[in-house]
Amino acid sequence: MTPSPVAIAAYRRKYERELFERVIPFWLQYSLDRERGGYFNCLDRDGSLYDTTKHVWLQGRQAWLFAKLYRTVESKPEWLAAARLGVDFLQHFAIRPDRRAYFSLTEDGKPIQLQRKIFSECFYTMALAEFSRASDRPDLLAAARDELATLWDWAYDWSYVGRPVLAGQHPAQSLAVPMILLNLIEEIAPDDASEYAVEVEDCIRRILLHVNSDEQLVYETVAPDGSQIASPQGRLLNPGHAIEAGWFLQHWAQRLQREDLSADAIAIVRWSFARGWDDEYGGIFYFLDAEGYSPTPLEWSMKLWWVQCEALYAHLLNFSLTGDRDDWDAFERVDAYCFEHFSDPKFGEWFGYCDRQGNVTHRFKGGPYKGCFHVPRALLLCWRLLQALETPNTQSVA
Amino acid sequence: MTPSPVAIAAYRRKYERELFERVIPFWLQYSLDRERGGYFNCLDRDGSLYDTTKHVWLQGRQAWLFAKLYRTVESKPEWLAAARLGVDFLQHFAIRPDRRAYFSLTEDGKPIQLQRKIFSECFYTMALAEFSRASDRPDLLAAARDELATLWDWAYDWSYVGRPVLAGQHPAQSLAVPMILLNLIEEIAPDDASEYAVEVEDCIRRILLHVNSDEQLVYETVAPDGSQIASPQGRLLNPGHAIEAGWFLQHWAQRLQREDLSADAIAIVRWSFARGWDDEYGGIFYFLDAEGYSPTPLEWSMKLWWVQCEALYAHLLNFSLTGDRDDWDAFERVDAYCFEHFSDPKFGEWFGYCDRQGNVTHRFKGGPYKGCFHVPRALLLCWRLLQALETPNTQSVA
Repeated sequence: MTPSPVAIAAYRRKYERELFERVIPFWLQYSLDRERGGYFNCLDRDGSLYDTTKHVWLQGRQAWLFAKLYRTVESKPEWLAAARLGVDFLQHFAIRPDRRAYFSLTEDGKPIQLQRKIFSECFYTMALAEFSRASDRPDLLAAARDELATLWDWAYDWSYVGRPVLAGQHPAQSLAVPMILLNLIEEIAPDDASEYAVEVEDCIRRILLHVNSDEQLVYETVAPDGSQIASPQGRLLNPGHAIEAGWFLQHWAQRLQREDLSADAIAIVRWSFARGWDDEYGGIFYFLDAEGYSPTPLEWSMKLWWVQCEALYAHLLNFSLTGDRDDWDAFERVDAYCFEHFSDPKFGEWFGYCDRQGNVTHRFKGGPYKGCFHVPRALLLCWRLLQALETPNTQSVA
Repeated sequence: MTPSPVAIAAYRRKYERELFERVIPFWLQYSLDRERGGYFNCLDRDGSLYDTTKHVWLQGRQAWLFAKLYRTVESKPEWLAAARLGVDFLQHFAIRPDRRAYFSLTEDGKPIQLQRKIFSECFYTMALAEFSRASDRPDLLAAARDELATLWDWAYDWSYVGRPVLAGQHPAQSLAVPMILLNLIEEIAPDDASEYAVEVEDCIRRILLHVNSDEQLVYETVAPDGSQIASPQGRLLNPGHAIEAGWFLQHWAQRLQREDLSADAIAIVRWSFARGWDDEYGGIFYFLDAEGYSPTPLEWSMKLWWVQCEALYAHLLNFSLTGDRDDWDAFERVDAYCFEHFSDPKFGEWFGYCDRQGNVTHRFKGGPYKGCFHVPRALLLCWRLLQALETPNTQSVA
C-alpha cells in the first residue's frame, strides 16, 4: 500500500517546520560573525561558542545553503546577507593565489591548516557558484568555473596538493572525488551542462567503477580500473557516501533521461541501505568491511547524522521514481531514527553523533566537520520532493 | 590494609602466565614474517592475517620488546631472532638517508606512507638501542644515538618533517614529544645518562609545563611557556598519555633520586586516573575536555587497551613507592577491567578497543596502531615489580 496523500502532507509539514522553524533559525542566530565575517562553526548544544576556529568546508557549505534558500525558496534579504558573509570571508581569507584553499582559519582569517586534499576547494567553489546566481554576480560563476578547471587537473593526482608519491602505494581512486566533482558540475551548470558533457561522463564512469553489482556492494576505494584492492582500505564500505553518490547520480540520470543510469542509482541506494542498516540498534553504520572483518577506523560502528540525512532524501527520491512501498518504508525507518536520536527538541538543529546503541556521544551542534549543511540540505530536498508528491502533476524536482 | 604477600604472589603468577603463556606466544606464532623479514601487524582475533601492511611504529616496538625479553628475562634464541627480524627489516626498508622513517611499508618493504611527525623515527631508534645491547652490536647503539641527535633538532619544529608553518597557528607543545624523548634517553642510556643531562632536564621541564597542580590536570597540548591554549585542542585531556608520562617521570625521579619529582609523578598518575576513570561503566576514557565540553574526536568515550595498560603499571609503581592502599586499589580496579574486557580467553593477546559501555568493538588483536607492545610491556613491568614486592629486600626495578 502506498502512503496516503494525508501521510505525505504530514511529512511535508514536518520537514517544513523542522527546516524553517528549528534548523535555519539556529544557524542564523548563533553562527554569523557579523564583526569579522564568515561563520562560527563550533557551536555547543545551545548555540554557545566553544571554539572560534572557522572551518573552510563548513564556511563554503553554509554560504551555499543560504544562497540556495534565497534563490529557490524566498528572496529574504537576511538569507542573502548570510550567504554574502561567508563568500566574502572565503574570498578574502580562504583561497590562495595558487587556487589552493585552507582547511581552517582563525576567526579573523589567518590560516591554521592546509590539507593535502581538494575538498576545501570544492566547497569554496560550490559556494561561489550558488551565490553568483543568488546575487547576480556572473564574475563569481566565472571564478567557480576556473576553480573547477584547476580541481579537474588535481582530482586524480594529489601530488599536486602535496601528497608524496611512494613506491608501495596501490593506485587507488576514492569514491569521494568523482561524486563531489559531479555534484559541483550540477551546482555550476544547473540548466545547461553541455559544456561539461565529457566531464560528466567521466564522473559517472568513475563512480560506477565502485559499484559491484554481483555483490550488490559499493566500494569506497578501488583501483583506477575498478578492480578491488586486497586490503582493509579496499574492503571498506562507507554506506552513507554510497547513498549520497546514489542520489547525485539519480539527478543526472533524470537530466540526461537515461533509464539504465536511473536503475543503477536506485540500486546503489537500496543495496547500501540493506548492507549498512544496523538491524540490532537501528541507524546506518559509518563504515563496514565487505568481508566482515572489523573496520580499522575506531568510529566505524557509530551513527553519524550526515549518513542518515543522505538516506532520507535518497529513499524519498527512489520512492518518487518507483512508487515502491519498500522505498517509502526505508524513508520512514530513517526518518524515525533521525527524529528520535538526532533532532534536538530543546534548542533546535540536530546532534551529530550517536554510538552504535543510539546514545548521543557529542552534545555540540557544530564541530570541525558538522556545520549548516547536511541537515538543512536533506530537509530542503525532502520538503521539495514531498511537495511534488502531494501534487503529482508537477514536474519532478530532481 | 595493604595487600597480603599471598595476594601479591597471586598477581605475580597471573601476570607471568598472561605474558609468557598467552601474549608472547601469540606474536611469536602469528606475526613473524620469516620470508621477507619484519612482522605482520594486522592480525585478526585468531591470529590470521587480514592485511599485509607493515607499520613502522609497530615494527620498532615489537623488535624492542623481544630484545628486552632476551636481555632481561632469558637468553632464548627465538626471542633474539624475533628481534633481529624487525631490526634488519627496519634498517633495510624503513629508514631513509635523511634519517626520516616511513610510517608504513608493503610486506616486501616498499614505502606506502610518510607521516609529518617524528614517532616512526622514535620507535625505530628505541628498537636499535635495545637490540644493540641484546646482540652486542655497539654500532647500532651509535646509530640510535645519531638518530636521537637528529630527532632532538626536529622535535619542537615539525617544519623539518614537512608541516607547513601558517600564520594562524597557535604555538603549541604536545605532551607526546618530551615524554617519548625522555623514554628514548632511558632506553639509549639505561645506566649512565650523564651525557644526556641537559636533554633529560629539558624533557622533565617540558613535561611539567603540561601539569596544572591547582586544577590537578595534565593538558595534552600547551603553549611553549606552559600557558593554556583557549581551544578544544588546548582543553584536551588524554589521561592515558598523562599516566604513561607519570611513570616515565617516576623512573627518572628514582634514577636522579629526586623526591620532588617523584611526588609530582605520583600526583600526575593519581589525578589523571581520578579524572579519567568512567564511574558509570568503568575503564579510563580516551579523551576528555577540561571544561566539560564534548571532546571533538569521535572516539573520545571509547576504552582503549593501551590507556588501561599504562595505568596498570603506573598504579603499581605508585604503590611500590607509597605503600598507599588507594594506589593498590586503583591497580586492582584497572586489572579487573582489563581482564574482564580486553584479555581474550580463547586465542590469547588482548582486544584493543571497547565502546564506552565496555563492549569489544574491534575483534582484531593487531591493527595499524596496535602491535606487540603495550600489553607485553605492561605485563613485563608489572611482573617484575610484583616480584620485587614479593621479596621486599631487593632493589626497586624502577
